[in-house]
Amino acid sequence: MRFSVLVEVRLRPGIADPQGATIERALPALGFSGVEKVRVGKAVRFEVVAADEAAARDEATSMAERLLANPVIEDAEVTVISGNGRP
Amino acid sequence: MRFSVLVEVRLRPGIADPQGATIERALPALGFSGVEKVRVGKAVRFEVVAADEAAARDEATSMAERLLANPVIEDAEVTVISGNGRP
Repeated sequence: MRFSVLVEVRLRPGIADPQGATIERALPALGFSGVEKVRVGKAVRFEVVAADEAAARDEATSMAERLLANPVIEDAEVTVISGNGRP
Repeated sequence: MRFSVLVEVRLRPGIADPQGATIERALPALGFSGVEKVRVGKAVRFEVVAADEAAARDEATSMAERLLANPVIEDAEVTVISGNGRP
């Protein structure tokens, strides 16, 4: 079966996020107030062919650890979104 | 109230994604097979103070359109995750 997967890669708490800080600094000039703690991560979406949802999740988690995220500074969260009947 | 918001910024369908293509090309050498359609976007998380969830969503959507995404090549999806009682 084919599963759609979303891997969200976030900087770990405490790791400086210059991109998020820049966005936060730009917001008041654009008229946005009350926005805090802006953190910018990556959202990687892909499709994976696997026997079942658990296998899809395992492969995606392994991919996240080995390629998509840097585990020293980043956390990865894997969400298996949907499966359908296609091979 | 304070709301946690996630804005996922994705390249529009048909826009070339060299970062996703590079990941896809690297996967077989790492032992991952059956992975297709890799697309890399941004996941921006922040907290916003707003009167209610609708107001938080409106502010986040406006931020996404004006600052976080480039509407020519990107789509933004806003998810208001939680609100709590803090001012």
